[in-house]
Amino acid sequence: MKVICSKDALIEGIGIVQKAVTTKTTLKILEGILLEASDRFKLTGNDLEIGIESYVDADIREQGNIVLNSKMFGDIVRRLPDSEVLIEVKQNFEVIIECENSHFEIKGLPASEYPALPPIKRENVFKIKQKIIRDMIKQTIFAVSIDENRRILTGSLIECADNEISIVSIDGFRLALRRYLISNDIQDFNVVIPGKTLNEIVKILQPVEDEVAIYISDNQILFEMQKCKVVSRLLEGEYLNYKSIIPQDFETKLRVGTKELLASIERASLITSEEKKYPVKFRIADDKLIISSNTDLGASRDEVRVDMYGNKMEIGFNPRYFIEALKVIEDENVDIFFTSSIGPCTIKPVEGSSFAYMILPVRIKGE
Amino acid sequence: MKVICSKDALIEGIGIVQKAVTTKTTLKILEGILLEASDRFKLTGNDLEIGIESYVDADIREQGNIVLNSKMFGDIVRRLPDSEVLIEVKQNFEVIIECENSHFEIKGLPASEYPALPPIKRENVFKIKQKIIRDMIKQTIFAVSIDENRRILTGSLIECADNEISIVSIDGFRLALRRYLISNDIQDFNVVIPGKTLNEIVKILQPVEDEVAIYISDNQILFEMQKCKVVSRLLEGEYLNYKSIIPQDFETKLRVGTKELLASIERASLITSEEKKYPVKFRIADDKLIISSNTDLGASRDEVRVDMYGNKMEIGFNPRYFIEALKVIEDENVDIFFTSSIGPCTIKPVEGSSFAYMILPVRIKGE
Repeated sequence: MKVICSKDALIEGIGIVQKAVTTKTTLKILEGILLEASDRFKLTGNDLEIGIESYVDADIREQGNIVLNSKMFGDIVRRLPDSEVLIEVKQNFEVIIECENSHFEIKGLPASEYPALPPIKRENVFKIKQKIIRDMIKQTIFAVSIDENRRILTGSLIECADNEISIVSIDGFRLALRRYLISNDIQDFNVVIPGKTLNEIVKILQPVEDEVAIYISDNQILFEMQKCKVVSRLLEGEYLNYKSIIPQDFETKLRVGTKELLASIERASLITSEEKKYPVKFRIADDKLIISSNTDLGASRDEVRVDMYGNKMEIGFNPRYFIEALKVIEDENVDIFFTSSIGPCTIKPVEGSSFAYMILPVRIKGE
Repeated sequence: MKVICSKDALIEGIGIVQKAVTTKTTLKILEGILLEASDRFKLTGNDLEIGIESYVDADIREQGNIVLNSKMFGDIVRRLPDSEVLIEVKQNFEVIIECENSHFEIKGLPASEYPALPPIKRENVFKIKQKIIRDMIKQTIFAVSIDENRRILTGSLIECADNEISIVSIDGFRLALRRYLISNDIQDFNVVIPGKTLNEIVKILQPVEDEVAIYISDNQILFEMQKCKVVSRLLEGEYLNYKSIIPQDFETKLRVGTKELLASIERASLITSEEKKYPVKFRIADDKLIISSNTDLGASRDEVRVDMYGNKMEIGFNPRYFIEALKVIEDENVDIFFTSSIGPCTIKPVEGSSFAYMILPVRIKGE
């Protein structure tokens, strides 16, 4: 193999595939990046859960392939002068990297040992703008469960029905849902993608108008962009029937400024602590929401102006669940629907149904 | 105590004194910030090695004092709305913090338990621009020893002789020296400041023309700025006679671009490793400096154009020592003086004597 490419293009490609390279492996080959030069110059990272391919513009002088340690290869290329880089494979997997007056010789591993990415049938496909699917993932991923006993909840459901894409995460205490109407006709499907790989995919997707093509198969999903491809395995099993969980009626509803509510809950959470699970208390009455906490560290009270419909209410929450949801909502105002002082509440947009965040309350002690 | 001040001024003051608040203590009072309101509103942090006072503009309604947990107090104030903050001490060390519609009640500790900063005799003083002393510390601190067996070398020497200030760090393998000529007459002195506290002082000093007044006593040094004061204890004992260590003659001298040399050594160091102490090799001949390394990870070779005087030379170095020195040098070019292939080398400015970095070589195996 002998290729010449620009340092910048190479760094970009390495940065993308490194998201799939694991350091927590006993298999040395998985710590590497596969370099392949045939009609195009392609880099691959693969941790057996997620695989990423990236194409780098290059002048291919000799076809071939090699595996290079990801960290060392990346560190070397990042430090090279801003110029053309030559990568050449010699005898015995010796690799030469050369750039202006800099010259490296490092040992590679045979490409034949590198695990190939699974092939994907290119049947079920839909296209969506990168920034839209990126936002949808960001706005739901935090509610994915980390409890391995309910494996299916450690992923997010991606569902398509009637040309509407929904992404749903549920961890047993809360639910996060984002919806988006696709303009073109696509086949219905539903798959569950591991949260871990979604976290990497969201870093590769860019906030741009360019589309990503998403191919669905039985046990794999493929995200295809112009310069790279991401393949993730899917979680097997049936996801929860989330629609039946979201309450449809309410006892109390309030409309409130998103940022204002977030700031108030963040303040109240300062004197709670995640380990001890102190709740913050909402007291809703007379178009005011009083958010308070009372712990062994002290007490806090915050007052927020709201538009209120329905009955007075007192209810307690784990503040983190509210904070994580409010942080990803871009709308200036939201509606919050309370079913009862011991029932779930749901945050929804003032208009439309593009998202829903349902949160279960925490029992609070009487005053 | 009852004071009203702006959130921004309070955050600034807290940020400064927090640099002296330790979290690694069993003394709960040292995790706190002392708040004192008399004619001015003053915050104090003190870990018994370094003490910092900061003044905050405030409307003092009632004099008094209290100690508040540094982390909680800082977290609360940072989250408050951008407005005026009221801090009021009630019965039993209960403290109220109020800002717009936010209200906190937290428990304080009695100020009487807080360790007072040591008094400093205001005799030996010199004044210097903050940005100058800040740069001088930054350009020498990395060579401070971490070996507690030679306690005195865990600090930097600050010396004044003939109106010239010198800061010196030595760790047994290298020396870093910065000099600056003061325009006004000051008394000679020499003190050794612990590296740990210098690291905090350098964060408080700003890159501005404003002067800092530095007061020297037998066992303390005081840095006085407009809005804050830093007191550090000094290390006891005699510092090394550093002047006798820096070689005066040389066998080979080269002039080289600082950034170019740094980049080349950084590349060569990529395939060395700190634990195994692989050196990088300098080969100097024919107005070229070849920097190479050869380890079990691979080999590298970099060529740098230099102006050379004297004999050819081959010599090995721990690359980190060169990298740390070259990173803090602002000059475009430097001169490097080599005494022999087993003797120390010294990096100096092309003109003047504002700095000197001396580095001991590492023995390299023959090819």
